[in-house]
Amino acid sequence: MKDITETVTCPLSESAREAFKHVSTATLTTQLFGRGLRNSHLEGLRALNPANQRMVGEAFTLRSIPAREDIDVLEIFQDYDHPQRKAVESVPAGSVLVVDSRGKTRAASLGHILATRLKTRGAAGIVTDGTVRDAEGFENLDLPTLAKGAAASTNLAIHHVVDMQVPIGCAEVAVYPGDIIVGDRDGVVCVPRHLAEEVAAEALEQEKLEAFILEKIEAGNPLRGTYPPDQNTMQEYRAQGEV
Amino acid sequence: MKDITETVTCPLSESAREAFKHVSTATLTTQLFGRGLRNSHLEGLRALNPANQRMVGEAFTLRSIPAREDIDVLEIFQDYDHPQRKAVESVPAGSVLVVDSRGKTRAASLGHILATRLKTRGAAGIVTDGTVRDAEGFENLDLPTLAKGAAASTNLAIHHVVDMQVPIGCAEVAVYPGDIIVGDRDGVVCVPRHLAEEVAAEALEQEKLEAFILEKIEAGNPLRGTYPPDQNTMQEYRAQGEV
Amino acid sequence: MKDITETVTCPLSESAREAFKHVSTATLTTQLFGRGLRNSHLEGLRALNPANQRMVGEAFTLRSIPAREDIDVLEIFQDYDHPQRKAVESVPAGSVLVVDSRGKTRAASLGHILATRLKTRGAAGIVTDGTVRDAEGFENLDLPTLAKGAAASTNLAIHHVVDMQVPIGCAEVAVYPGDIIVGDRDGVVCVPRHLAEEVAAEALEQEKLEAFILEKIEAGNPLRGTYPPDQNTMQEYRAQGEV
Amino acid sequence: MKDITETVTCPLSESAREAFKHVSTATLTTQLFGRGLRNSHLEGLRALNPANQRMVGEAFTLRSIPAREDIDVLEIFQDYDHPQRKAVESVPAGSVLVVDSRGKTRAASLGHILATRLKTRGAAGIVTDGTVRDAEGFENLDLPTLAKGAAASTNLAIHHVVDMQVPIGCAEVAVYPGDIIVGDRDGVVCVPRHLAEEVAAEALEQEKLEAFILEKIEAGNPLRGTYPPDQNTMQEYRAQGEV
Amino acid sequence: MKDITETVTCPLSESAREAFKHVSTATLTTQLFGRGLRNSHLEGLRALNPANQRMVGEAFTLRSIPAREDIDVLEIFQDYDHPQRKAVESVPAGSVLVVDSRGKTRAASLGHILATRLKTRGAAGIVTDGTVRDAEGFENLDLPTLAKGAAASTNLAIHHVVDMQVPIGCAEVAVYPGDIIVGDRDGVVCVPRHLAEEVAAEALEQEKLEAFILEKIEAGNPLRGTYPPDQNTMQEYRAQGEV
Amino acid sequence: MKDITETVTCPLSESAREAFKHVSTATLTTQLFGRGLRNSHLEGLRALNPANQRMVGEAFTLRSIPAREDIDVLEIFQDYDHPQRKAVESVPAGSVLVVDSRGKTRAASLGHILATRLKTRGAAGIVTDGTVRDAEGFENLDLPTLAKGAAASTNLAIHHVVDMQVPIGCAEVAVYPGDIIVGDRDGVVCVPRHLAEEVAAEALEQEKLEAFILEKIEAGNPLRGTYPPDQNTMQEYRAQGEV
Repeated sequence: MKDITETVTCPLSESAREAFKHVSTATLTTQLFGRGLRNSHLEGLRALNPANQRMVGEAFTLRSIPAREDIDVLEIFQDYDHPQRKAVESVPAGSVLVVDSRGKTRAASLGHILATRLKTRGAAGIVTDGTVRDAEGFENLDLPTLAKGAAASTNLAIHHVVDMQVPIGCAEVAVYPGDIIVGDRDGVVCVPRHLAEEVAAEALEQEKLEAFILEKIEAGNPLRGTYPPDQNTMQEYRAQGEV
Repeated sequence: MKDITETVTCPLSESAREAFKHVSTATLTTQLFGRGLRNSHLEGLRALNPANQRMVGEAFTLRSIPAREDIDVLEIFQDYDHPQRKAVESVPAGSVLVVDSRGKTRAASLGHILATRLKTRGAAGIVTDGTVRDAEGFENLDLPTLAKGAAASTNLAIHHVVDMQVPIGCAEVAVYPGDIIVGDRDGVVCVPRHLAEEVAAEALEQEKLEAFILEKIEAGNPLRGTYPPDQNTMQEYRAQGEV
Repeated sequence: MKDITETVTCPLSESAREAFKHVSTATLTTQLFGRGLRNSHLEGLRALNPANQRMVGEAFTLRSIPAREDIDVLEIFQDYDHPQRKAVESVPAGSVLVVDSRGKTRAASLGHILATRLKTRGAAGIVTDGTVRDAEGFENLDLPTLAKGAAASTNLAIHHVVDMQVPIGCAEVAVYPGDIIVGDRDGVVCVPRHLAEEVAAEALEQEKLEAFILEKIEAGNPLRGTYPPDQNTMQEYRAQGEV
Repeated sequence: MKDITETVTCPLSESAREAFKHVSTATLTTQLFGRGLRNSHLEGLRALNPANQRMVGEAFTLRSIPAREDIDVLEIFQDYDHPQRKAVESVPAGSVLVVDSRGKTRAASLGHILATRLKTRGAAGIVTDGTVRDAEGFENLDLPTLAKGAAASTNLAIHHVVDMQVPIGCAEVAVYPGDIIVGDRDGVVCVPRHLAEEVAAEALEQEKLEAFILEKIEAGNPLRGTYPPDQNTMQEYRAQGEV
Repeated sequence: MKDITETVTCPLSESAREAFKHVSTATLTTQLFGRGLRNSHLEGLRALNPANQRMVGEAFTLRSIPAREDIDVLEIFQDYDHPQRKAVESVPAGSVLVVDSRGKTRAASLGHILATRLKTRGAAGIVTDGTVRDAEGFENLDLPTLAKGAAASTNLAIHHVVDMQVPIGCAEVAVYPGDIIVGDRDGVVCVPRHLAEEVAAEALEQEKLEAFILEKIEAGNPLRGTYPPDQNTMQEYRAQGEV
Repeated sequence: MKDITETVTCPLSESAREAFKHVSTATLTTQLFGRGLRNSHLEGLRALNPANQRMVGEAFTLRSIPAREDIDVLEIFQDYDHPQRKAVESVPAGSVLVVDSRGKTRAASLGHILATRLKTRGAAGIVTDGTVRDAEGFENLDLPTLAKGAAASTNLAIHHVVDMQVPIGCAEVAVYPGDIIVGDRDGVVCVPRHLAEEVAAEALEQEKLEAFILEKIEAGNPLRGTYPPDQNTMQEYRAQGEV
């Protein structure tokens, strides 16, 4: 059986990346749903810096397990090759750091200094199904960050970062390295890499049509005939497009 | 046994509706608590459009069950008589659409286009114990919407809307069609229809008194004698009212 | 065995109080973690008045148990010596009222009028692992309040306040009367009283160093050598301090 | 769009019913999974009478909403036409009463007397995503009953039974009246009615093959070649069947 | 306002105690429900020694808060006056130790040695909304114990026992010292002390009637006329009693 | 910094393995607690085959992430090198398969056929923080299996097994390959490999002492002087040991 998580080797096209910057995560879930994927939205995450909500990038994954008191001590970070630190220095420009925090929120997955380093390295964003700390710093950082919220505790209190660039679960969604991560006001969606090009294109089409439909609904049209559009509405839509 | 959920047939009086627009949900729970109803607040819901938090209207209910993969496919919405769409076209002006989403948040109960249609039809608001999608659209929509938050996924991923205008549970509170739904910063309260007129009147009275008490507390008065008011304070309150 | 919860009898020094006003709760958890305390952050609380998030004060504790329908009736508050009311009138200026609400959010721990009284009495803040009501009033009150959110229901619906100034649990953290409670954007941290002076001093030092590190990271330095600082960076830091 | 929940009008064949009595719920989920249904198991239910775990029957559904203190009083049951009582008198022989208790366990969905009446009427079993009371009585009752456990409280404390024979959710699985409900040690599975005949037949086939595989594994065969069976193993299986 | 939790000073009558030994917790919740108490069942607890499920006794309460690493060390138990140990030595014969474990199950509330001491001192049972350890020992101990289950961890890992004989919450039910605690297969019910005598008497009556009803239902009678009993059935019941 | 998870290379001594077979998991948590490890018990797991509860073996770990509909199809198992199948064929005799199922119970981690293969290969047990299916088969299998319970669904419904012999979290406890896994009636405890020899020895000592204490408590001795033992009791204990 061909492994579909490894079938794509070329980088994401610029047109697809551009499309992902404009379509909503809601539209993407509909596109993926139509292809049989019912679980692509990472539930329960919200932007910590509302001014920077649009996020697009390839997933760079980080995996954590529960901490153990004799291993996870402050001195652990004296080692600059600690997986958490190494990951921060490894995320390529344009990628999103996606952290599997096992959905646990009692201690932060990371803080403002590491996020700042990610920013200066050109990362496209941060996603965790846990929390971050130094929330005030995040609010003023120009790097989209989506998490379950903020928590003051240092990550060692409950987290031990163990490896990176392996398939992970985040908010009970599978995330494979290289998948396309998109974030906006509704949260985060993970688009499997092998579907990214076609989903990007069709999502853009869907949004154009929905903008047209929304205008008609705002103008007082009933759902019948308009949403979803019947043949007449589609004809009108296509005619308008031709102008 | 007389069914008290069906004893009221006349519409809500204008004075009661006006009162509900001014009293807080906190006050309403106290009024209902005094009548033996300890569970009238729909826990855990928050306004998605903070600028439009005051909401008053009769409940128009919508019920969902879990989705099933062979039934809940995108084509289902080609049918304009699908219960979700039919409900949107049926909510009377002045009513609030209350959706029983079984408290599940992984997929949205509805999105921005349907909400816009509700708005143009004159609905008074939307309440769900699930989530909505297109959160950005909701923020700019002049229609009070209270939910557990936002989620990108299309509702078919987990919800199947099955019927409308039946008694439902929403956030583990019973909601009967026609009950009065009030929303503000503290969330949503459901006032049983047969109690609405008297609760509206007494809530208004309670709030006047509490405004007087708050002023005294702000002026440095101790709780003793003031909150709750003793005879002296009540005398002072009544005297002031007479001016 | 000496009871370390009762070994400190003198008031918190002014310098320590001042330090707590400037250091973050994130820094405090690191300091406490280094002393073996991995669970000092009260998870899941957020400021209801974002403009007033910095909070420092000694813990004044209040304990609640579940309500019982024949005890917890509205008339209970006619007694001005009811523990909840008595507590509000007992919190010393500069202290934080910390309420053990058993983590239950369905009814409010307290409302705006009591909070206003706390404000006029000089309290430093309110913390509950439950909810508050009259959220709009709290937003405009100059008194830091951290809770799980807002809920309209009167506290008697689920809470019975039973005693005060006893050791409690709040958000699954032990809080002893007199412990130092600090709040900011990341939530609330409880600093055991006997550690307060030394933690305050060292936290201040840590933050100075981290501000220096952040500047270097913002300037593009890699983590290696900078975070944590190696000998060179420390030398540079100390040299700068000497200027 | 044809409504597949209403396409089957003839009764379940005897051969299918017999097959369901012998195949495991585990096998049924695999059959349904192969047809695209990933969510047919009602999670978290266990048999209250372990001696009577095998259960097969058509779903007879009962729906509850949260109780309200002024409606749900003991006197309500004076009405023999109360939906809960009416349902008990309506379940056809051979059917399983499936109760939507919204997953809430604090009060029982029903007790031993009603269960006894169901037994004498020939019902095939009881399923609820809540609890039952009089657990001791259930243990000695010859009627398969699967629930989340036992709870002493009368159902009126949190439940109001509102209607029957409508589509419901139970343990977050859609259950339509007439679906085939099968229960055993692993819990409960709901087989959509329109798939019942073919699933029954193929499940029986699958179990025969798996019994053969299990024997080989018990005999020390490795998974490779055996589970799943390769061509050789299948040939051997078929040859054995021909004897 | 008279404090109804302190109005009863005489011991429970022998007839009431005897009645509580024979009525089920299900019956008791119905009696309390009829008096306005909807929340008397301690949800989610089960007997760890199924052979000894019937439990009756006055509540002797024990309260815990979260542990703190610098206080809750193994040496703490060198102090024989540690509240947990003192409580075990203070429970009067015939009383039930009820432990407020905040509903947390990750570490045991107590183990087999302390339970054995309770047994030799004549205690009537143990109830905790947490867990116990040495489950095997409990299974063979002739002392009814109801808990959420078993957990190996020593209680100091998450619990700090802080005082005894104060009002507590257990499984979100208020328990006042002296309340009557009854346990059976359905779990645990707390009967407020001031209602104990009348509830005991009426519960016994209710059970006699229900035994009569059950017999009729088992004999094939329909619910109508039988459950609840109409005038005819009541007449028959009374006649039978007179024999 | 030396990695303490990799410092032990020799196999567990026979005396230690023997000791682990006789000491309880409760005793082990106390030993680990005394060494600063407060979180070694895997909460919430129970034996599916009560007759085979004693389990000891080195951890062989298996990691799962959430399933994705286009990857996790039944055909995946045609590949005998699928990680789940490969793991089953790789567990050394005497080892325990520990599965990280992310604590999710909706679908089984594995079923009876794979467990039977593990048994024939000499595995010492199975642990998962999820569920298993074919519970009836497990009850009759002579292989200790501890899980959160049973669920009928095939694992592909929510699980994708991704790799083995990496550090994992199981029930929010860190498990490193080679750690000693011990199971009994109270659940499962993970003993870090580098502490195993000394913990085994001291646990055995502790249990001898506790057996002596229990006898005295059963004989009616008070806690004071006995539990914990004072000097007199210790002298008596040692004297007895010398006989």
